Amino acid sequence: MTESRFLRACRREPVDATPIWLMRQAGRYMPEYRAVRARYSMLDVIRTPELACEITLQPINAFELDAAIIFADILPVLIGMGLDLEFVKGEGPVINNPITSPADVDALRTPSAEENAPYTLEAIRLVRRELGDRIPLIGFSGAPFTLASYAIEGGGSKNHVEVKSFMLSEPDAWHRLMDKLTAVVSSYLVAQAGAGAQALQVFDSWAGVLAPDDFREYVLPYAQRVVAAAQSTGVPVIYFGTDLNGMLPLLPETGADVIGVDWRIGIDHAWAQLGAGVAVQGNLDPVALFGPWAEVERRADDILRRVGGRPGHIFNLGHGILPHTPVENVKRLAEYVHERSANREKDG
Amino acid sequence: MTESRFLRACRREPVDATPIWLMRQAGRYMPEYRAVRARYSMLDVIRTPELACEITLQPINAFELDAAIIFADILPVLIGMGLDLEFVKGEGPVINNPITSPADVDALRTPSAEENAPYTLEAIRLVRRELGDRIPLIGFSGAPFTLASYAIEGGGSKNHVEVKSFMLSEPDAWHRLMDKLTAVVSSYLVAQAGAGAQALQVFDSWAGVLAPDDFREYVLPYAQRVVAAAQSTGVPVIYFGTDLNGMLPLLPETGADVIGVDWRIGIDHAWAQLGAGVAVQGNLDPVALFGPWAEVERRADDILRRVGGRPGHIFNLGHGILPHTPVENVKRLAEYVHERSANREKDG
Repeated sequence: MTESRFLRACRREPVDATPIWLMRQAGRYMPEYRAVRARYSMLDVIRTPELACEITLQPINAFELDAAIIFADILPVLIGMGLDLEFVKGEGPVINNPITSPADVDALRTPSAEENAPYTLEAIRLVRRELGDRIPLIGFSGAPFTLASYAIEGGGSKNHVEVKSFMLSEPDAWHRLMDKLTAVVSSYLVAQAGAGAQALQVFDSWAGVLAPDDFREYVLPYAQRVVAAAQSTGVPVIYFGTDLNGMLPLLPETGADVIGVDWRIGIDHAWAQLGAGVAVQGNLDPVALFGPWAEVERRADDILRRVGGRPGHIFNLGHGILPHTPVENVKRLAEYVHERSANREKDG
Repeated sequence: MTESRFLRACRREPVDATPIWLMRQAGRYMPEYRAVRARYSMLDVIRTPELACEITLQPINAFELDAAIIFADILPVLIGMGLDLEFVKGEGPVINNPITSPADVDALRTPSAEENAPYTLEAIRLVRRELGDRIPLIGFSGAPFTLASYAIEGGGSKNHVEVKSFMLSEPDAWHRLMDKLTAVVSSYLVAQAGAGAQALQVFDSWAGVLAPDDFREYVLPYAQRVVAAAQSTGVPVIYFGTDLNGMLPLLPETGADVIGVDWRIGIDHAWAQLGAGVAVQGNLDPVALFGPWAEVERRADDILRRVGGRPGHIFNLGHGILPHTPVENVKRLAEYVHERSANREKDG
């Protein structure tokens, strides 16, 4: 394919217009998505490559997006490790046998991606066949800390007391757990690139619950290892978490090509702290899309103005798109980002 | 009283040892507190000055703390405005008639503090009588944005879609709502100082869900007004919220004497962004207290080392103390902060 805007931006090369995609772009705000999910459970969709492929393509067919992201979830890789994962309606993910002791860590298996998530690898192959040369496909995984958090908390958590207590009280078992998760995540990311993913995003969704020194000691070394494994395939890697604005200067140490930034900071201020060595993805408040279009436009324009045409910007939300987001605003946002940034290039 | 360490630190004056208090220091982690709460509901305790006084003093009698904070809650002031607030067991606060329209805003009353929370003013008088000259008493209020968030969401919220949508879609009604909340909060803070509170903390607990430009436009002017009203009484004012590390340079514009900082940033980095004109309160991760004592000590020491004896530091957690926090670690933390900082002063 002609090298895409998205992949060029990942490498901080000039583009004809700012590329845009949206985290969770295939999701409940789309009627097409709800129609499929009315018939199939979350795990069913993820484990049926034809359905995962169909859902992956829904936003691509509806909006002017510059990348697809494979429909999957960060948690199913835990099933093959021995954790009993369920998606409970209205409650989200639940792990019925969470990790509570070093012995639980030692009992975890470390299956290869081919054993662990063959359905997602097959879905990637299907999507690539469908997309042809139109736009690139992003694969993804949870980062080791975020997976450890779910595995120890047994699901989502407000204060992350269990995972942080385990980290502080059982440091040896903690590092063994992170080693195992790093092996599983690395295998998964490498296999996704092998199946055809042209970029890989590492979601460290919960890393922002940590103090910077704890992040550096207990988390960063493992983030570095999964990023390096993913990059060994030759594809660019995006590292993303929310609530990390107190430790932006640390994040380039992950080695990622692109850092995703939440909406709680001006993107220019974030980039100044991240330094010139990385591309930046973000950072519209997902809730801004619920406002009148004029407010969405004002905020999108402000982000483009703050970036000022600097190569290496990928427009995105600062977190996943929310259920009930008005579809019309999503459509207009993608068009607006392209038009406005293309004109800015021309205006100089 | 001999001028306290805490009040001196609020004014960035040198102290003999770093003052420490803990947000929610009177709380469920203390058996004495649970004993009272087993017999009385949250609203009962808040509305019975003798009980509020008793609970306020519990941590003061148990630990080496440098300030008391009146036992109250940020939400009861909404009752007098016309909102039907309940504390639902296991669910937290619920407002049964949340604000959904401009007409709802216009129907809100703006009672004076004497009408609205006479019980808390009386509790402040009782506590001051009990404390005598030992340590100062802090009063507090929710900030207008945080109260608006509860009033519109009808309780806690994960993504704050309702409050932010209202702000963007009904800007005129938003500003009228913030005006009314500002009047109520200002009256409440001024009355607390009049009743004897020697410092006032403004909790903008949810401000960290906003993008910096939205904070500046829709929230900051009202935060400035309540801070100025509180300062007109002559007492120092602390402004605190979490997840604000992307907009630290904006926070001194609140006018507060002290800015509270969460644990997601090194306190030295936070202070560098806040500038020399404010004192800083924080910032131990509340979950660190669940670790072995050696880990608590290491983190407390790191905070003191980062501050390096600079005048104007008040040691605190980066957020409220959590239920189930080991009491022994709280006791040792207060003692350690005093000993370590006093020795540091001597060592130079």
